[in-house]
Amino acid sequence: MTQTPVTQTNSQPRITVWNEYRHEKENPKVSAVYPDGIHQVIAAGLSTHGFENVHTATLDEPEHGLTGEVLDNTDVLIWWGHKAHGDVSNEAAAKVVARVLDGMGLIVLHSGHFSKVFKALMGTGCDLKWREANDKERLWVINPAHPIAQNVGEYIELEAEEMYGEHFDIPAPDELVFVSWFSGGEVFRSGCTFTRGSGKIFYFRPGHETYPTYHHTKIQQVIANAALWARPTASAPRSFGNRPEPLEPLHTQTERQ
Amino acid sequence: MTQTPVTQTNSQPRITVWNEYRHEKENPKVSAVYPDGIHQVIAAGLSTHGFENVHTATLDEPEHGLTGEVLDNTDVLIWWGHKAHGDVSNEAAAKVVARVLDGMGLIVLHSGHFSKVFKALMGTGCDLKWREANDKERLWVINPAHPIAQNVGEYIELEAEEMYGEHFDIPAPDELVFVSWFSGGEVFRSGCTFTRGSGKIFYFRPGHETYPTYHHTKIQQVIANAALWARPTASAPRSFGNRPEPLEPLHTQTERQ
Amino acid sequence: MTQTPVTQTNSQPRITVWNEYRHEKENPKVSAVYPDGIHQVIAAGLSTHGFENVHTATLDEPEHGLTGEVLDNTDVLIWWGHKAHGDVSNEAAAKVVARVLDGMGLIVLHSGHFSKVFKALMGTGCDLKWREANDKERLWVINPAHPIAQNVGEYIELEAEEMYGEHFDIPAPDELVFVSWFSGGEVFRSGCTFTRGSGKIFYFRPGHETYPTYHHTKIQQVIANAALWARPTASAPRSFGNRPEPLEPLHTQTERQ
Amino acid sequence: MTQTPVTQTNSQPRITVWNEYRHEKENPKVSAVYPDGIHQVIAAGLSTHGFENVHTATLDEPEHGLTGEVLDNTDVLIWWGHKAHGDVSNEAAAKVVARVLDGMGLIVLHSGHFSKVFKALMGTGCDLKWREANDKERLWVINPAHPIAQNVGEYIELEAEEMYGEHFDIPAPDELVFVSWFSGGEVFRSGCTFTRGSGKIFYFRPGHETYPTYHHTKIQQVIANAALWARPTASAPRSFGNRPEPLEPLHTQTERQ
Repeated sequence: MTQTPVTQTNSQPRITVWNEYRHEKENPKVSAVYPDGIHQVIAAGLSTHGFENVHTATLDEPEHGLTGEVLDNTDVLIWWGHKAHGDVSNEAAAKVVARVLDGMGLIVLHSGHFSKVFKALMGTGCDLKWREANDKERLWVINPAHPIAQNVGEYIELEAEEMYGEHFDIPAPDELVFVSWFSGGEVFRSGCTFTRGSGKIFYFRPGHETYPTYHHTKIQQVIANAALWARPTASAPRSFGNRPEPLEPLHTQTERQ
Repeated sequence: MTQTPVTQTNSQPRITVWNEYRHEKENPKVSAVYPDGIHQVIAAGLSTHGFENVHTATLDEPEHGLTGEVLDNTDVLIWWGHKAHGDVSNEAAAKVVARVLDGMGLIVLHSGHFSKVFKALMGTGCDLKWREANDKERLWVINPAHPIAQNVGEYIELEAEEMYGEHFDIPAPDELVFVSWFSGGEVFRSGCTFTRGSGKIFYFRPGHETYPTYHHTKIQQVIANAALWARPTASAPRSFGNRPEPLEPLHTQTERQ
Repeated sequence: MTQTPVTQTNSQPRITVWNEYRHEKENPKVSAVYPDGIHQVIAAGLSTHGFENVHTATLDEPEHGLTGEVLDNTDVLIWWGHKAHGDVSNEAAAKVVARVLDGMGLIVLHSGHFSKVFKALMGTGCDLKWREANDKERLWVINPAHPIAQNVGEYIELEAEEMYGEHFDIPAPDELVFVSWFSGGEVFRSGCTFTRGSGKIFYFRPGHETYPTYHHTKIQQVIANAALWARPTASAPRSFGNRPEPLEPLHTQTERQ
Repeated sequence: MTQTPVTQTNSQPRITVWNEYRHEKENPKVSAVYPDGIHQVIAAGLSTHGFENVHTATLDEPEHGLTGEVLDNTDVLIWWGHKAHGDVSNEAAAKVVARVLDGMGLIVLHSGHFSKVFKALMGTGCDLKWREANDKERLWVINPAHPIAQNVGEYIELEAEEMYGEHFDIPAPDELVFVSWFSGGEVFRSGCTFTRGSGKIFYFRPGHETYPTYHHTKIQQVIANAALWARPTASAPRSFGNRPEPLEPLHTQTERQ
């Protein structure tokens, strides 16, 4: 067979940035920061980092913009939602969960912790403490060897953000990449990886809609790093069920004695 | 305050052994092995190991035997189900999941991997490969320091069992305690711990209904070890939501500069 | 055989509190806080929590107080050291490491992160950032289900402590129990569990010698919780080496075809 | 600043394949399988997979072939050793360990589990059970989402190999990629990842010197996958030590009250 060189595989994942896109249309404070929507700023940041196949989808498009065709052409899905988690249909949420288990990467941002998709994949309540009071946030790199932490230095500082505090009701992450310090006195596991089925998931905390967080160079860097990390691998087809024929000859109990 | 000595806490968890209890009533081959039901053999094993508060509940009792009062008095729930996962009401399953997140221990046995409760807590498909062909199974202790592996030696050997093979579609367990070898050529992560919310979960593979597995001394030992390990801790109340008052004084951006 | 009830095993581990015990003899600021040494305050705290077999040992005793007989009678060793790590003989350190791998529990406190014992068991540099400036420290419970976090509430607050900041150069802990917030802007993984061989290890950050940290009720509670958690299990003897006789009959390649 | 596109970083790691290279010169049975040494076969496999910067080094070269210049130009080091672990100088071993902590990737093969380098990085004894009896080995993929498991299907089958059996005395790996089944009745965690400092480590079990294991296409695939996975990230410089100036203003205890 012809060998695809390991070093050239999957260098350009196809990315879909999904956004609830309601705050921006309803709240002037938000549209001042994200006039074309949070998704457009995230997509632009990915282009800056060399990704060429970046598309967007939003809640109020038909099928929430997540048609079978769109998902068929998505290697990594980025998810931002907040006030309208309940408006995402159960069918769409189930479809996304199934795709993740089959290998699609998923990056869940900020208040997406309460989305149907993330909660189903975690199996826990995903609740936390929060405060909107312009806390300063400092995201410390806990795992400097992790590809998601590349090129961000020792920490990322955000002058003002919503506070999220522990206890964050998630399963212990496979890898803890960032921990946030908040000026009001709390900490939070703000960068967490999970594997579910064949899919890689990264939860990244920052990004309240009233702050310019997604314009921040280092935040864009982390999302770009995560998009590359979360792309599907050329894994074996997921194969389950009855295997009546053993791989090795079974011997009767008598024979074994 | 009066100090409860650390060394005396929680020595006698209240255990409920839940069983689907249908195979035993319908299949003579099963009732020959478990005439009073799998749950009775498991409960008797626990008594042998010094547990004094052991009760049972089964699918066809009112509310599947899992009333609020029963759950209020359960520190650790043991779950065996196979052919009737669909007959467990969504309400009962959701109630059990909520209790686990609030701290109730859960031990899921064998084909319970496909129960509504376990699948919801894992967030994955929980599928696997299987074969009913009298494979020999040998469960190797991978983590000899783990309290669940106490007093079982280097491995447990079961002369004949159903085979379960990888890939087992679960999240990476917090701790891997046992890995099974099967004579037909497969391996399986057969003893896995998970923490979800305040609840500790142990999945333990063996126990197909046609084999005398739960009569086996070492299998009883593992279940007893797990029941002690999974008992609730005196943890902080799970506390989430808005915290408008910071713990430390917030300074305005101007003040900070 | 006579069954030892699972519920009664190991309720009273034998604990040795080891202390460098030099600051207290040389620095009046320290002896004002710990006139009889840090070890005595820790030992007294354990007694308060019901432990009856608590002994102490210090660096300047013969063999550093860690004779074979002492170690033979130690289930859990607690370690505080700071300025004299180099004065611990390589032989003593190697002896302790070997005991841990064979099942002795180990609780490493504060500046013990740089001890020969901890570094050898971690395999990394164990370095970190630090500052002596009376930072406030708040240790948040990250894993409320963990037995080491029992009875401490949502967090522990220390009015003044030395700061330790990330990156903390350790392997990813098996379980992360506490994360510290410091008023100066840093975070730290301040409660970490590890298993090495048959031994359980807990690293716990607080306790600079000039602060009354070990007099704090909740700090004593954590150490008591950890001592119970770290006690040895009745695990299989560690058994390695050549196994010329297979457990199952090997078939020649020809037979298998 | 000019942005290096995320998608183009590090596509060609510089690899050094280190081999003890003594069996091949002393044992005709081994030289029949690896006439130019195990390292040459591994290097050739990497070239097949598109790696262009592959070099080799062996024990009996000056400085074991691991001069400062060689290590300066090594992103990923592959290590095969068996009978002469003791002949590797402590200085060379310490140098390699330091490089790994600073970010160099390390792939440890087969009997390299007992090398000075691996033991120092693990902090445990790294012992195991073994048998030379032509066991069949089947390496099952446990984590199909992992990049190291790409393109190998559900399992890898080796017709004859040395057996390694649990308990394998290592810390719990960060990720478990493969578990081996042996025809003689044992299992083994045969593909394990670890992060130590900024370095990524992969232990891969197969490869006894008398078998043609490294000629096997899928084994070569795994090593190529691992070499790409283990390459250094553009992480922050490891920065430790005293930080007398806090990042945030500290308030005196009085001010805080």
